[in-house]
Amino acid sequence: MSDVFVTVEPEGRKIRSITGVTLLDAFAASGVSVRSECGGRGACGKCKVFVTEKTRINEVTDQEKRVLTREETSLNMRLACQVYLEGNLTVMIPVESRVRQRRIQVAGVDVALELSPAIRKLRAQPSPPTLLDTQTYSERLLRFLEETYDLQGLTIGYEALKKLPGALNASQRDVTATVWNSREIIDVEAGDTTQRAYGLAVDIGTSKIVGQLVSLDDGQVVATSSLENPQIIHGEDVISRITFASASEEGLDQLQSIVLGGINAVASRVCEQAGVHATHLYEMTLVGNSAMHHILLHIPPLSLALAPYVPTVKSSLNLRPKDLDLQMNDGGNIHLLPLVAGFVGADNIAGILSTRVHKSEELSILIDIGTNTEVNLGNREGLLCCSCASGPAFEGAHIRDGMKAVQGAIERVSIDANDHAVHFEVIGGGKPVGICGSAMIDILAEMFRHNLVNRTGRINEKAPTERIRKANDSLEFVVAWREETDKDEDIVITQGDIRELQLAKAAIYAGCSILMKHHAVSHEAIEKIYLAGAFGNYIDSDNAKIIGIIPDVPTENVVFVGNSALSGARMALLSTEMRREATDLSQQLTYVELGAASNFNEELISATYLPHKDLTRFPSVRKIVGKNTRTG
Amino acid sequence: MSDVFVTVEPEGRKIRSITGVTLLDAFAASGVSVRSECGGRGACGKCKVFVTEKTRINEVTDQEKRVLTREETSLNMRLACQVYLEGNLTVMIPVESRVRQRRIQVAGVDVALELSPAIRKLRAQPSPPTLLDTQTYSERLLRFLEETYDLQGLTIGYEALKKLPGALNASQRDVTATVWNSREIIDVEAGDTTQRAYGLAVDIGTSKIVGQLVSLDDGQVVATSSLENPQIIHGEDVISRITFASASEEGLDQLQSIVLGGINAVASRVCEQAGVHATHLYEMTLVGNSAMHHILLHIPPLSLALAPYVPTVKSSLNLRPKDLDLQMNDGGNIHLLPLVAGFVGADNIAGILSTRVHKSEELSILIDIGTNTEVNLGNREGLLCCSCASGPAFEGAHIRDGMKAVQGAIERVSIDANDHAVHFEVIGGGKPVGICGSAMIDILAEMFRHNLVNRTGRINEKAPTERIRKANDSLEFVVAWREETDKDEDIVITQGDIRELQLAKAAIYAGCSILMKHHAVSHEAIEKIYLAGAFGNYIDSDNAKIIGIIPDVPTENVVFVGNSALSGARMALLSTEMRREATDLSQQLTYVELGAASNFNEELISATYLPHKDLTRFPSVRKIVGKNTRTG
Repeated sequence: MSDVFVTVEPEGRKIRSITGVTLLDAFAASGVSVRSECGGRGACGKCKVFVTEKTRINEVTDQEKRVLTREETSLNMRLACQVYLEGNLTVMIPVESRVRQRRIQVAGVDVALELSPAIRKLRAQPSPPTLLDTQTYSERLLRFLEETYDLQGLTIGYEALKKLPGALNASQRDVTATVWNSREIIDVEAGDTTQRAYGLAVDIGTSKIVGQLVSLDDGQVVATSSLENPQIIHGEDVISRITFASASEEGLDQLQSIVLGGINAVASRVCEQAGVHATHLYEMTLVGNSAMHHILLHIPPLSLALAPYVPTVKSSLNLRPKDLDLQMNDGGNIHLLPLVAGFVGADNIAGILSTRVHKSEELSILIDIGTNTEVNLGNREGLLCCSCASGPAFEGAHIRDGMKAVQGAIERVSIDANDHAVHFEVIGGGKPVGICGSAMIDILAEMFRHNLVNRTGRINEKAPTERIRKANDSLEFVVAWREETDKDEDIVITQGDIRELQLAKAAIYAGCSILMKHHAVSHEAIEKIYLAGAFGNYIDSDNAKIIGIIPDVPTENVVFVGNSALSGARMALLSTEMRREATDLSQQLTYVELGAASNFNEELISATYLPHKDLTRFPSVRKIVGKNTRTG
Repeated sequence: MSDVFVTVEPEGRKIRSITGVTLLDAFAASGVSVRSECGGRGACGKCKVFVTEKTRINEVTDQEKRVLTREETSLNMRLACQVYLEGNLTVMIPVESRVRQRRIQVAGVDVALELSPAIRKLRAQPSPPTLLDTQTYSERLLRFLEETYDLQGLTIGYEALKKLPGALNASQRDVTATVWNSREIIDVEAGDTTQRAYGLAVDIGTSKIVGQLVSLDDGQVVATSSLENPQIIHGEDVISRITFASASEEGLDQLQSIVLGGINAVASRVCEQAGVHATHLYEMTLVGNSAMHHILLHIPPLSLALAPYVPTVKSSLNLRPKDLDLQMNDGGNIHLLPLVAGFVGADNIAGILSTRVHKSEELSILIDIGTNTEVNLGNREGLLCCSCASGPAFEGAHIRDGMKAVQGAIERVSIDANDHAVHFEVIGGGKPVGICGSAMIDILAEMFRHNLVNRTGRINEKAPTERIRKANDSLEFVVAWREETDKDEDIVITQGDIRELQLAKAAIYAGCSILMKHHAVSHEAIEKIYLAGAFGNYIDSDNAKIIGIIPDVPTENVVFVGNSALSGARMALLSTEMRREATDLSQQLTYVELGAASNFNEELISATYLPHKDLTRFPSVRKIVGKNTRTG
């Protein structure tokens, strides 16, 4: 027994060990993280390393011959658990053998996540039966996996059972078993397919379905696609969908099959983009508001819309592809994250998961702006939430030139203080055809800043600019002249549009305000505001504050997190711990019914002002808007 | 507190109790068995009694108003748990309120079975939500059932979830929940449907599919139907089916969909016969040999036919209707009983269940004669089993005038000792068209008894009867002259037929013999022989012994049990305890591979003699056959 040194590439770190020890054990003793599912039995093939320089090591073992391809062996690839140190060694650890910790990028938030998906693909080489050992093939596979991967009470599902004989025959009993939640084999394939494991995170919004295909082997997003929710033909908001679904038996049938068709379309698009076969799509995690959730499941949603607004079910659900006719691996799993209440759905829980508000010390507000806007307030001590009927204005509906945050939409706007020239940026470049939510916030804030609109939202007819004009007996502000656009007329914001935006922003702020009162805090106590929603890539926090969508906190404490619901769904795909957190959240979130708050109407009306009737709540805005606020 | 007397009709028994006690408690204290699922809370409505004469009792309670119909109340029906004794009383307990113990009739065996089906239908009246109590509807239902029926960890299945809002709305929250295995709600219906619970027991034979529709509420068989297994177009025995299923991908597809179609046909027939809607068919228990089992499940069956004859799976399985496209309640369960080995299937386990051999002190043999014949030997100390390739002769195949035990088949035959006149009985009366298995046994035994065939099975050309004649260079015996039949020619047994029957019976006896040797016992030690198989209603035990199908035990100890596999499937439908016993049997039965027995060929050849080459094994036959055995 003598000292040996192993140089670990690419970092060039040198670790000390002793002869006779396996390379895997040497790594472990020195804190070099390498994957291993089988505890060093040479079965899982996860601890592959390249031996780039050696003095002496043992020959390739039988286990390695089984697990490594001939090509891999020819490149001096070895399994760390099968290499016994005899002298100094230099090895290169490829990326895929590193322990998997993944940083999830939620625009603005960066979450470290230990990969622990419900889906694991494990290699198995069960022994053949003999006349004296007639255990069935499924028992052999179960026993092998239990012993090799330290699993208990494993079962085999029906879809896997059907594939087992074929997979064993095609591979001389060298198979890959897909195990769900460490308790059920859901697929069996011939050979090594461990890296072909994918999941789809889906956010089913009232207006948009977005899906992300994720590798469950390494946590990478491999494709993203979205689709207008095709249910929109039966109503643009949640209430009209519920009404349609409740009017006749066929209504619910139609809405369900439409949304399932949408999910299948998104799934097939991302699979095609990434060259992934649907049989390797093993899990979907679905989030959406409570109405989308019930309709998707063909659960009559009427109770969601009637006091006391109670869902039929709110706990998380695991369904099978056949239950919903979703196209994925037949043995796969569809996981629906839990709901909170009739108007606070799984999308809100996913948003909390992704921003980690429930684990933070900071008192935070998370606002997910949509047709219904969910507001959460709290920290790891507890969370309040509510739902605000903000309407679809920020998504472009009911705004004359409004549109979604897609190509051709103006997404940023500034107005020159002197000549009131309008500078704008268009998604995808080129000439604009409309205005999306983030630009509406900019326009309203800029108009207010430059005294083109007063505190009650009235357009200033006397402002010294030709951009303000009368049309059809009503005032409007020209954002872009016809020749600047890709359409046949000017792009404008009308007095009516401003009223819609005021109502929308008032609903959102009133929600924040009532939650703050519930928690007995004012805006000074709020340490962070997370702003989520379908705003494309951009929202100007200062402007959001100036028009009073959100409480007045320092701008640097406002973080735009984009589609946080989708990020949360992705996290639930990659970590079963996130599913446990979601279940806890579903039970622990305190839902505040805004309609039941005695001061709701007063709050709402006060919040229609720019930024608010009570300026003491917006000290920083008071300073900025100067003259205007005095004349309002 | 004073004594009161309750007279219990129809038995007229008088029980003593005290005032203030409920009638249900009074019953319990006196050993009068009355059903109750809710422990006396007035929720389940199972303890209905008619009050036929009373002095004083309390008014009808609110619970009773909820559970009893107005018509029932007008007939003085009460719930025993809601009646508080105040004076003497006479009550009539209707049959449906008696504790359910059912005697299962297996022809010749009479089994007492406590009804404990996996399916229970329970009434529930969950409270409505309020703004302060916003538990979801599914939580309310689960909580109500758990509290009322003392259940723990209950969940609700997806199919039930979809039906919950509709059922609650249609009934002012008075619903019936169908609970599977005390752990999952699989259906919810408006109102009281507790008596509409049915199950289907199915025996999937290589040649016949038989189904029995059973009420899960009272255990009664309400309809029976059978069908030739339509797979027969792809081969009549197990091996040819396996070959067909293994030859191409489509082969297995075809065989599976054919047998599923057959099961659906049987299910729809029995439901129609009994006027039962398929949504009230909640469970199926399926038994069949291992090949039928694998093919039904679309599991490639080739391994069953190749040494070491190992199944892919043998444990019991619970599948959902969608897995197999079987027409029943969407939330229902398909239970497949476990297998023993490649050639000993779930039908054999069901046969043991129904004859209770595994619980008996008597050393018994159970023989289920079919294309493959399973033989079991043992008692409650342990059981050996084997499978004999007896072929389909007794089912009519390969026998010139052979046929199944259906209308028009000769089922019993005797031959006059003096003039060799043949007396026969025909299934369904009328003129015969062929001979079924039980008659073949009779014919061979009678021919042997009257010296028309010798010990080697050769027809006695010199016998003084015109019924023996030569045709196509071979001897034959006329069983029925053309004018006696419903066909255009005589019904005969040929020399070739006798050879087929000898091979079949030798295979069966050799199995018995090898198991007896394994157990180190001779025929004297066998206390009971159960004979099962598709023989219609009849098999002559004496004749079976004379030709040496079964070991020589006193005739009164041979019991014909008909389709014991179907009886076992029915028991598994009615009692979850039977499913546990089946699982134990699957693990504890010792399978003996006949092909591996060193003396197998010798045993087989010796057993082709009538009754056997070694006459010391058949002392009673030696006595009967007299002269013939000496000249053989």
